[in-house]
Amino acid sequence: MLAEPESNLISRSLLLLKKGGKKKRSTDSEKMAEPPVRFGILGCAKIARKLSRAITLAPNSTIVAIGSRSLEKAISFARENGFPASAKVYGSYDGVLDDPDVEAVYIPLPTSLHLRWAVLAAQKKKHVLLDKPVALNVKELDIILEACESSGVQFMDATMWMHHPRTSQMREFLSDPQKFGQLKAVHSIFSYVEGPEFLKNDIRVKPDLDALGALGDTGWYCTRAILWAAEYELPKTVTALPDPEFNEAGVILSCGASLRWEDGKVATFYCSFITNLTMDITVLGTNGNLRVHDFVIPYQESAAPFYVTSNSKFVELAIGCDPSPNEHIVGTDLPQEALMVREFSSLVGGIKLNGSKPEKKWPNISRKTQAVIDAVKASIDKGFEPIEVVF
Amino acid sequence: MLAEPESNLISRSLLLLKKGGKKKRSTDSEKMAEPPVRFGILGCAKIARKLSRAITLAPNSTIVAIGSRSLEKAISFARENGFPASAKVYGSYDGVLDDPDVEAVYIPLPTSLHLRWAVLAAQKKKHVLLDKPVALNVKELDIILEACESSGVQFMDATMWMHHPRTSQMREFLSDPQKFGQLKAVHSIFSYVEGPEFLKNDIRVKPDLDALGALGDTGWYCTRAILWAAEYELPKTVTALPDPEFNEAGVILSCGASLRWEDGKVATFYCSFITNLTMDITVLGTNGNLRVHDFVIPYQESAAPFYVTSNSKFVELAIGCDPSPNEHIVGTDLPQEALMVREFSSLVGGIKLNGSKPEKKWPNISRKTQAVIDAVKASIDKGFEPIEVVF
Repeated sequence: MLAEPESNLISRSLLLLKKGGKKKRSTDSEKMAEPPVRFGILGCAKIARKLSRAITLAPNSTIVAIGSRSLEKAISFARENGFPASAKVYGSYDGVLDDPDVEAVYIPLPTSLHLRWAVLAAQKKKHVLLDKPVALNVKELDIILEACESSGVQFMDATMWMHHPRTSQMREFLSDPQKFGQLKAVHSIFSYVEGPEFLKNDIRVKPDLDALGALGDTGWYCTRAILWAAEYELPKTVTALPDPEFNEAGVILSCGASLRWEDGKVATFYCSFITNLTMDITVLGTNGNLRVHDFVIPYQESAAPFYVTSNSKFVELAIGCDPSPNEHIVGTDLPQEALMVREFSSLVGGIKLNGSKPEKKWPNISRKTQAVIDAVKASIDKGFEPIEVVF
Repeated sequence: MLAEPESNLISRSLLLLKKGGKKKRSTDSEKMAEPPVRFGILGCAKIARKLSRAITLAPNSTIVAIGSRSLEKAISFARENGFPASAKVYGSYDGVLDDPDVEAVYIPLPTSLHLRWAVLAAQKKKHVLLDKPVALNVKELDIILEACESSGVQFMDATMWMHHPRTSQMREFLSDPQKFGQLKAVHSIFSYVEGPEFLKNDIRVKPDLDALGALGDTGWYCTRAILWAAEYELPKTVTALPDPEFNEAGVILSCGASLRWEDGKVATFYCSFITNLTMDITVLGTNGNLRVHDFVIPYQESAAPFYVTSNSKFVELAIGCDPSPNEHIVGTDLPQEALMVREFSSLVGGIKLNGSKPEKKWPNISRKTQAVIDAVKASIDKGFEPIEVVF
C-alpha cells in the first residue's frame, strides 16, 4: 500500500473558487468544534468528484484517503479534486479499509461490487455511505445491513435530494390536512440521455456491473420519491408497465411501474436512459397538489423551487381556475450533497463521541426502496404480473 | 312546441361585459361576411352556458334555439345567457330538431342520451357538436357516426383545448426532430374535486346517465392528450392500473391506465373526481420534453403557457442542469371554446356553401379516443388484463 500524501495538494480555497466559491462553507472554527469525521473513498467514479467536494464543504467531515485499483488514477483524482495534503492515496480498496485513520467510507463502486466492499468496510468498523442502488436485491442488502448492525456502524445511501431543505418544506405541505389532505396519487419521472456509446458500454448498463440498468439508477430516485410522498408506507402490490426497453445485453434502458396501496392510493413512475433529462414528482391529494421538476438535482445549487396549489376550483362558467399554482423557492447555503454528508457525519459523530446507536431510519428507507425495485424487477421477469411487496 | 322569442332578450354587449368584455369579439361586419351557422342547444346543462357564450363570441355562428324538457328552465336559460331576441325556446329537444332554422346542434346531454339524440339530430340534417364522452362505447358511437355520414353532416366532439393556439404550438415543438426527437413517453392527469354530494348524486357519477364516471369525463381528456402527443397512432395494448375507486353505485371515481405501442412508446394517465384540480401533460422525447399544467382549461383565458426543454445536460460535476425549462406563453383573442365553435362552423359553412364533404379528421379522432376508453374499461372489468385496442 503506497500512500502519496505530498503529491495531491491543491488548496481548498482554490477548489472552492473553482467549484462554487459563492457558497457558504465551513470555517476553520466550525471544523474545530467537533473533530471532523475522516472519510475514505473507494474508487474514482465520476460521482466521487462531486462527493469529494461535498465532504470538503460539509463542516464536520474531511477526506483522509482514496483507493483505486490503479494507484495512478487515485493520485490524479486526489490532485484534481484538491484533496488535503495529508490525504493518503492507495492502489487498492483494501488500503483504505485497513487505514486506521479512516472512520467512514463513501462507496461509489458499481452495484455488483457493493456486497463485497460494503460488508468488508462494516467489518473493519468503517461507517458506510453507499451509492445507489444499494444492492442488486434485498437479499444482498440484508447482508450489508447485518454487517453494519453487528459492527455498530452507520449506514446511509447516497440519495442526495433527501437532504435538501426543499424536501422537508415539501413534506410539510404534504402533511397539511387543509392544504393537501389525503394522498391519492403520485407520479415520478427520472430520465436522462448520455448517447449511444453510454447505452452499450457504460457501467450502468453492463449486466455484470449494474444489472438493474435504468431501474436501479434513475428508477431508484422515482421509487424513493413515491415512498417519500407516501411517508414510507409500502405499497401492497407493484406491477411493471409493459414493455421496458433493453439494450443488446438485456439490461433495462427504460421501464415503469404502477404501485397500489390498500387504501386506494396509487403511484406510477417512468425511468429511462433514453429520454431527455426530466426529474419530476407530481403528488395529488384530496385538497392540493405538489409539483417539482428538478427533484434529483436542482437546476440551481443555491435555490430550488416547488409548486403547490390548494383547493383549486374552476371559476365562473369553468373559465380558468383559481388559485393557480404558487411557486415556493427554497434557498440553501450548502449544496444537497454536502448536507447529506453533514447529516451522515453528524450521526457518525454521535456514535463516536456519545456512544449513540446508529440511526435506523436510513437503512430502513434504503431497504424499502430496494424492496420495491425488487418487486418491479420480478414483475418484469414474470410478464408484468402484480407482485406483492414483501418486507 | 312553444317558442318564446320575446322573453329572453339581453343585449349581447351586456353579456360580453359580464362574461369577458375584454376579449376581442366578432363585429357585425364579420358576422355579415358569410351567413353565420345557426345553432340550437339541447338541454340546459351548466356547460351549455359556456358554449352559449362561445357561440356568441365566434364570428361565424349564432344561437337560434334552445330546448329543455322543462320549458321554464329553457326560458330562464335563454334569459340568463343573453340569447338573441330572435332565439326560440322549446319545452323539448324535438322542438329544436324540428326547427328548420336550426342548422347545427350542440348536445351537452348525459352520455347515455347521446345515441338517441345525436342520431336523431343527424337524421334531421343537423350538424352535430357533441359533448364528451361522445358515447358509452365505440359501438354506440359508430351508430352516431353512420347517421352523420349518411346525412352528410359534420360531427365534432366538444374537446375545447384541441382548438387553443397553444395546442398547435405545442404540436410544432413535438414535431421538431432536433428539439424533441422521437416520442418515448407521455403522462397525463386530469382531476378535480366537487365534494361529497357530487360523488353520490351528480349526473357524471350516475350509472344510468354517465356510466363511465371519471374515466369518461376526466379520462377522456387524458386519453385525447396521449393520442394527440402520439399523432393519433393508436396504442397496441391498454392496461388499466389496479385499483380504481368506485362510488356506492359502482361508478368510477378515479382510475388510470398504461398504454403501449409496438415501437416501445409508453403512456400512463390518472383521472379522478377525488383529487385537487390538476390538468397536466408531460411528454418525453429522446431530445426534449414538454410540460403543460392547465391543458384542459387554461388558468387564464387570454394567454396560456407551456414549458419545454431540449438537449438538457447535467453541468460540471452533475451540479444543476442546462438548459432549464423555457416558458412559452401563447396569447389568443378568442377563448378556446369559441375557437372550437368557429372551426366547427367553418366546416359547416363549407358544406353549406361549397358542397364540401364533412371533415373526417374529427369523427376519426373521437372514435380513437373512445376506442382507448373502451379498452381501459374492458381491462378494469377483466381484472387489469392488457387489452388489445381494436379499431
